[in-house]
Amino acid sequence: MTRFDVKILGCGSAMPTTLHNPSSQLVNANEKLFMIDCGEGTQLQMRKFKTRISKLHSIFISHIHGDHILGLPGLISTLNILGRKMDLNIYAHKEIEPLLLSALDFFCPHLVFQVHFFPLNADAFEQIYENKSLRVCSFPLKHRIPTCGFLFEEKESLRHIKREMIDFYQIPIKQIKEIKSGADFVTPDGRVIPNEILTSPAKPPRRYAYCSDTAYCPDIIPYIEGVDALYHEATFAESEAIRAQQTFHSTARQAAKIAKAANVKKLILGHFSSRYTELDDLLREAQSVFPDTLLAYEGMDIVL
Amino acid sequence: MTRFDVKILGCGSAMPTTLHNPSSQLVNANEKLFMIDCGEGTQLQMRKFKTRISKLHSIFISHIHGDHILGLPGLISTLNILGRKMDLNIYAHKEIEPLLLSALDFFCPHLVFQVHFFPLNADAFEQIYENKSLRVCSFPLKHRIPTCGFLFEEKESLRHIKREMIDFYQIPIKQIKEIKSGADFVTPDGRVIPNEILTSPAKPPRRYAYCSDTAYCPDIIPYIEGVDALYHEATFAESEAIRAQQTFHSTARQAAKIAKAANVKKLILGHFSSRYTELDDLLREAQSVFPDTLLAYEGMDIVL
Repeated sequence: MTRFDVKILGCGSAMPTTLHNPSSQLVNANEKLFMIDCGEGTQLQMRKFKTRISKLHSIFISHIHGDHILGLPGLISTLNILGRKMDLNIYAHKEIEPLLLSALDFFCPHLVFQVHFFPLNADAFEQIYENKSLRVCSFPLKHRIPTCGFLFEEKESLRHIKREMIDFYQIPIKQIKEIKSGADFVTPDGRVIPNEILTSPAKPPRRYAYCSDTAYCPDIIPYIEGVDALYHEATFAESEAIRAQQTFHSTARQAAKIAKAANVKKLILGHFSSRYTELDDLLREAQSVFPDTLLAYEGMDIVL
Repeated sequence: MTRFDVKILGCGSAMPTTLHNPSSQLVNANEKLFMIDCGEGTQLQMRKFKTRISKLHSIFISHIHGDHILGLPGLISTLNILGRKMDLNIYAHKEIEPLLLSALDFFCPHLVFQVHFFPLNADAFEQIYENKSLRVCSFPLKHRIPTCGFLFEEKESLRHIKREMIDFYQIPIKQIKEIKSGADFVTPDGRVIPNEILTSPAKPPRRYAYCSDTAYCPDIIPYIEGVDALYHEATFAESEAIRAQQTFHSTARQAAKIAKAANVKKLILGHFSSRYTELDDLLREAQSVFPDTLLAYEGMDIVL
């Protein structure tokens, strides 16, 4: 099975603390690294957790608040010093493009690789990237400025053909791909062998969703329905529900309500306010609604 | 005696490592904090070392390479969240002003305090700040782009008048300030009592110099002559002297030659290349020229 996991680099909020770094995480899909958000200090976190910076493929920025993007110039500068050859794709709201390009002109005037900027649309669900085994989509969250959630999903893989059936029916090699794709087999004497007898189902594609920053927003439920893991912001405890509403953030309980309604397999809470030095209350609050809840922490691995 | 010391927040170079953060340090002069350089992650280092962010008075940026300035937007954003009232003065090369202001517009759109930008002149020795007890000057270093060194010096304090002389000559209170400033005392019967009999010298003003980044540059010696502590970059060991020359950096030995020629009291080496996982060779190399050499490290206090 190909690799598909997530490493949390930072799960704090606007004001970093000694406990939590600003937002960033790395999705490793088949040994390609896809970064989600890049707060200040992200490159240091990558070093700390010994992630392979050379595998970094693309960067997806949920929204252009500083705690989600200020690590970008330093990271790109370091990639440049390291002599990166591969292009780097950055997906973010279009408004940041001029400032980002100015910053790169200033701080990385002699870039040895190409940076491609792709504007995100925070108004609709859209596929924004795909390769042969992975698809990334963005969808609208509900924050003070245009903000995207991200859905990483494996593509459907082919059904598994049973070795003993190949031997028994003497299936020619050239027909195997069709059968893996769902075709029946017709024997030389005209008998139809149904596909279900020849194959076993592929593993269901794994899916990961990132939702930060956002107010409580049931509109996202269709996009994240049944994902293997949902990272959802929980900036506040329910006792700060009014503050959460005012600042377009969620409480831990609200994150759990979304997880429950979307019938996800696992919820990971993150984007914790700096006011919380310990997070047990947030965890209990969420678990009372959705038991399969975990707290994010810097260095956490979410294996899908 | 008033407080005058320096806290090293970062003494690495362009590429941060798990050992060293990018450049930043804090001069505490009489409980005001003056920051020199502000690389990515500086605000996190301030938290780690429990420095009082509310005491931050001004920020001096030696030059506008990323590893000396990329922490600024995040730091200012945090000051804003904390509700800072006091103005913040930023001294840096004029070219960065538009980009810095754009970044602040973007990431701190509702600043609750004023940021004042003061352009630095990297062509001459100039006083750039003073208060009643401190003077800060900038002077040209020799780097790939315009770069300033900084000299922090206490102002001369008044001589100490001897208590027993006040009693013996019955010196009126209104004349004490003059005598502390160096005046002689004339007794009612016309005798002149020389100042040296009445007073003891003030403590010599303490001085601290910061020289990073710079190639070997003996031109700076007059500016830093006799300082109590000199922080001088030593990006490379002498074995990389050619690379140092090409990149306008110094070797540890060159830093020591400057310290010796300027007759400083103490040399602190910093701005270490990420290639060095241990720095003993750099230290030995410098000490062979100038014995009173120390290696900087994150969290180091230089007491003046």
